[in-house]
Amino acid sequence: MTGLHVGIDIGGTKVLAGEVTAEGRVLRTARRRTPGRLADPRLLDDAVTEALQEVAGERAVASVGLSVAGLVDLSRGRVRFSTHLPWQEDDTAARLSARWGVPVLLDNDVSCAAVAELAYGQGLTHPDFLLVTVGTGIGGAIVHQGQLWRGANGMAGEFGHIRVVPDGRPCECGLRGCLEEYASGNAVVRLAGDAYEDGQAVTAAAAAGDPMAIQAITSVGDWFGIGLAGLVGSFDPAVVVVGGGVADAGELLLGPTRIALERSLVGSGHRDLPQVVVAACGPAAGMIGAAYLARSG
Amino acid sequence: MTGLHVGIDIGGTKVLAGEVTAEGRVLRTARRRTPGRLADPRLLDDAVTEALQEVAGERAVASVGLSVAGLVDLSRGRVRFSTHLPWQEDDTAARLSARWGVPVLLDNDVSCAAVAELAYGQGLTHPDFLLVTVGTGIGGAIVHQGQLWRGANGMAGEFGHIRVVPDGRPCECGLRGCLEEYASGNAVVRLAGDAYEDGQAVTAAAAAGDPMAIQAITSVGDWFGIGLAGLVGSFDPAVVVVGGGVADAGELLLGPTRIALERSLVGSGHRDLPQVVVAACGPAAGMIGAAYLARSG
Repeated sequence: MTGLHVGIDIGGTKVLAGEVTAEGRVLRTARRRTPGRLADPRLLDDAVTEALQEVAGERAVASVGLSVAGLVDLSRGRVRFSTHLPWQEDDTAARLSARWGVPVLLDNDVSCAAVAELAYGQGLTHPDFLLVTVGTGIGGAIVHQGQLWRGANGMAGEFGHIRVVPDGRPCECGLRGCLEEYASGNAVVRLAGDAYEDGQAVTAAAAAGDPMAIQAITSVGDWFGIGLAGLVGSFDPAVVVVGGGVADAGELLLGPTRIALERSLVGSGHRDLPQVVVAACGPAAGMIGAAYLARSG
Repeated sequence: MTGLHVGIDIGGTKVLAGEVTAEGRVLRTARRRTPGRLADPRLLDDAVTEALQEVAGERAVASVGLSVAGLVDLSRGRVRFSTHLPWQEDDTAARLSARWGVPVLLDNDVSCAAVAELAYGQGLTHPDFLLVTVGTGIGGAIVHQGQLWRGANGMAGEFGHIRVVPDGRPCECGLRGCLEEYASGNAVVRLAGDAYEDGQAVTAAAAAGDPMAIQAITSVGDWFGIGLAGLVGSFDPAVVVVGGGVADAGELLLGPTRIALERSLVGSGHRDLPQVVVAACGPAAGMIGAAYLARSG
């Protein structure tokens, strides 16, 4: 099929569309704000359509992949549950496919990021890994023998909502004490005293030596390592790939993470610890993976 | 190879050996006490040898499978770490193979139980499941597309040592707040007021209507459901198979487990909950699976 292959990442705050080549390079992008969860779903349709049009211009579009922050029903191309998006239990992919006249694929954002890592990143050397994204919240995906493990509902990898504190902090998902309340971009911002807009701003301040920002990222790294210890005990992966905006902190985050992981892992000292590495595809991973999936049909 | 195929389950309190047929039936068993962790490892060799001799009598033995409560190095046939056994980081399988003059295979007890379920139990209808055993402690195994997922170190499935309470109860593994401190046979006995010898005794009392025993099993079911919620969020399995001695409580345990699982699972109400079913192979599952693996070479 001739024409562009476009990936669109739809997160809690922004819609990011991009033309993606077969080699996984992003050629041109456009961005819109995401309407809130209680908005009319058609407002999100419009935002995504505008971003697509800006990327395509006069050129034909061959396929569109949507990378979505939420639990997804892959077979029906719809969002089943999302803490941030107005698309809920509707016919999103079919509706947009009819509107645009092109095939549309909709998948979970972390699954898309894992596909991008598989095709263009850490998967080139590691056929088995856990991907854990530390962004606004925590996302996860499981890659086994070069394949994404999707689970019975296509919802595997929801590592952010493992309960780590009984009667702990309330989470946007409706539960309490979820890991992502203690080890995410939101937690970094809270721990840094709410003086920063998002986790990436704290990361930048920490890199510049700000002690409170460093302390916030250290605490999040500690909690993240405790969470990883449960996952490593469960899956025993050779490699843990860490993505998402807070992963930009690099060793500021991963140093404390590795210490807490080793301290908190059952049988530590009698087993090989997994490598903990940063994702190769960066913040565009969801978009790249969605375009790859849509292109692959 | 002619001769018996024998499975030997080596738990924290007893050694249980049995002749196992190709159809998974147990024909003859023998039992010995397990020497404690600080005993000379050769005392455990002797106990296992006596149990084997009692099962075999004058008959030739073709293979022996050892099902062991601990982290196992499968390729070298040795226990890497066990909270209960004197075999630690030695050449167990090679040593016993030389002593007995037969092939000896050594594997983790819950992996063996999963193999038994795959060959003779729930695996006949479910190619994908999590096995969680609730015995003295908690064990786990992951079955994907009819295969055991062993992980990079052969240590996948250590669900019992996921931390569920920060600074919680000390665990025999050296960590604190592990799931198995709140949702195991040991926890059942503690919650029932230490008036019972083991989890199975509490289970029997609960089945007979003892209110304190019922309360203890209900509490353990609640914690077990909370732990399962994290695993179901991570793996999204279609089926969770529950084995181990406490599973004999049946619905007394699984009723509260299902309620807590549904309450604690991310996206509940927007996904299918997994079936939670009792293991088919019963308390001999480890022995049966070990014999199956040894027979299969």
